[in-house]
Amino acid sequence: MTTTAHLSLRYDAASERVLIVDQTRLPHDFIERELASLDDACEAIAAMWVRGAPLIGVTAAFGVYLALKPQVGASRAVLASAIERLAATRPTAINLRWALDRVAAQLADVDDSILCESALGCALALHAEDIATCAALGEQGAERLSQLWEAKCAAAQSAGLAAPTQLNVLTHCNAGALATVDWGTALAVIYKTQARGVPIHVWVDETRPRNQGASLTCWELGQRGVAHTLIVDNAGGHLMQHGLVDCCVVGSDRTTLNGDVCNKIGTYLKALAAFDNGIPFYVALPISTIDFTLRDGLSEIPIEERAGEEVSHITGRDDDGRVCRVQLTPDATRVSNYGFDVTPARLVTALITERGLFEANAESLSALHAQLDAQAVG
Amino acid sequence: MTTTAHLSLRYDAASERVLIVDQTRLPHDFIERELASLDDACEAIAAMWVRGAPLIGVTAAFGVYLALKPQVGASRAVLASAIERLAATRPTAINLRWALDRVAAQLADVDDSILCESALGCALALHAEDIATCAALGEQGAERLSQLWEAKCAAAQSAGLAAPTQLNVLTHCNAGALATVDWGTALAVIYKTQARGVPIHVWVDETRPRNQGASLTCWELGQRGVAHTLIVDNAGGHLMQHGLVDCCVVGSDRTTLNGDVCNKIGTYLKALAAFDNGIPFYVALPISTIDFTLRDGLSEIPIEERAGEEVSHITGRDDDGRVCRVQLTPDATRVSNYGFDVTPARLVTALITERGLFEANAESLSALHAQLDAQAVG
Repeated sequence: MTTTAHLSLRYDAASERVLIVDQTRLPHDFIERELASLDDACEAIAAMWVRGAPLIGVTAAFGVYLALKPQVGASRAVLASAIERLAATRPTAINLRWALDRVAAQLADVDDSILCESALGCALALHAEDIATCAALGEQGAERLSQLWEAKCAAAQSAGLAAPTQLNVLTHCNAGALATVDWGTALAVIYKTQARGVPIHVWVDETRPRNQGASLTCWELGQRGVAHTLIVDNAGGHLMQHGLVDCCVVGSDRTTLNGDVCNKIGTYLKALAAFDNGIPFYVALPISTIDFTLRDGLSEIPIEERAGEEVSHITGRDDDGRVCRVQLTPDATRVSNYGFDVTPARLVTALITERGLFEANAESLSALHAQLDAQAVG
Repeated sequence: MTTTAHLSLRYDAASERVLIVDQTRLPHDFIERELASLDDACEAIAAMWVRGAPLIGVTAAFGVYLALKPQVGASRAVLASAIERLAATRPTAINLRWALDRVAAQLADVDDSILCESALGCALALHAEDIATCAALGEQGAERLSQLWEAKCAAAQSAGLAAPTQLNVLTHCNAGALATVDWGTALAVIYKTQARGVPIHVWVDETRPRNQGASLTCWELGQRGVAHTLIVDNAGGHLMQHGLVDCCVVGSDRTTLNGDVCNKIGTYLKALAAFDNGIPFYVALPISTIDFTLRDGLSEIPIEERAGEEVSHITGRDDDGRVCRVQLTPDATRVSNYGFDVTPARLVTALITERGLFEANAESLSALHAQLDAQAVG
């Protein structure tokens, strides 16, 4: 089992330091930054040095630890205030809330004298759990993608056509090792499928406005030796119409009990195109991403609006190797910048989780919820 | 009737010069260039100093004139060779072929001694005709959009809601005055609707990879005082789901007899979203854009593939006001870059032409074709 050379977030026990990769600097620079305080953790999430629903959750847990570390003031008050500040950094991803709820619950009954150590333990547990969860959901998805590959080969053979050379998977944004602690969600499925010997090729949506596909997914797939081709967000429908996409696999920032999937803006358009062309559309997610309290994604999930400068300006490397930001638009242009959209459950073929594949509907997810509750009680 | 201050292509009779606006320099610089030769005309089209199906056609007609102007060699051979070279500059837009066919037909019977003057006359006629055609189709579309606005106001009133403040129209790419000689196609509809007093607001898709929406449509709408907001190509579906789009209006590079519409890559995704949300999807086009010889757009229209650098690199203005190109991707990233896609007729509400609105199907367009043939004979 391979692991990434660079975890997106790591705790160095010897120096007691929390280190993250500054994802706003990729792909041009690989820079680790230390998170030394609650302020740092809040800025890391809000400014998207770290991003991706699972990674945001783990970062927030470490943020609680960092808030308690100075041990000044009433630690319970510090804890409550830290949780409140961290929860407000980004509104859409549910994992942030989920991780903070976990931390709060686990710290509720510990003695104040060990609050800080307990918070660290809690963050480290979430960190380890994220790696295991992503690896497990990757295997679940790889099982399905291997079946698609076998079916593609069999179909070609029975039609008397040449054997296919690759399984073409389209993904949007970065739901990879950089969006989690390791492995990723959608990309975990891809890594695990490749590990099974399936010749996989990934169409990477560039994912405007922040270009996480072009800058993060391409970088990450390159690091791990997965064949891939970058496309603009506009191109996926055309590729699907021409038989060049075998399935889509994306991540999720929040999924409702009904199976509606909130993910990076533009996911809905790809799901429509997949549906129109009879192509399976999978969403890979840890169960912590499911918000069992919500039903209708469109009306109930808050959609983050971000600064217009993310659209009007872009950062790249110029001919002299200098990383700089350029303006793309006329000076007076007004910009709207929603960060996420909701893909209705009817367009989702299946949800790939660490406990297997689930249909995107209330019946299927209610059963999962009941199962989780029973385990929690038992 | 207002006209634009800057025609995208103009012939200066006093100096006998053909002048175009270099659209690759917008929105940061407004620069006119002279086309002084056939080579210039070919480069202008291939390098997209001029773009947009109608404008490409007119530019090609002037290219024939420029080829004949030096009056060296056998003029019929020069003519044939010029037409061949111009036709090869870009494969998808049908207007290029249509304009060259018109020029060839009109020059077929003229005396060799007046070939050059005749070519100029032909180009000037196409130039004038494009302005009139776009103005006419703009009026046809404005009639429909005015009805939509009245219906929106009436619906709000009967529901006891506040009067709506604006009609929200989404457009993709630049089908404006910069894509034609003047007025535009989709934007002609918008200009003419605004001229009727409808408070129109345009959602402008940035239109990756070349960002014609962000750089050209925003610039053009700003010049003409039309309210607009720039969005990434990923955002349109979300806006439609939330009732923020009243209709879509786009252009076309080639439309088949069946009503399939080939337009800038990504148009298909917006048409799917419009259909999914019950929003009218209009395509505004001069009839010269209809290829009556084709039926199935998906299998029959050649789709141009362009350089990967259009995706991996982008040009903008840095903080020092310098216009420069930056790289967005890791060095090793492979890119695919299709220029157009095909929107199936079933997703198109109506085709807006200079002769009125037509349903996007073979019955409707065959009738139009018959009508045109009858006029040509009569």
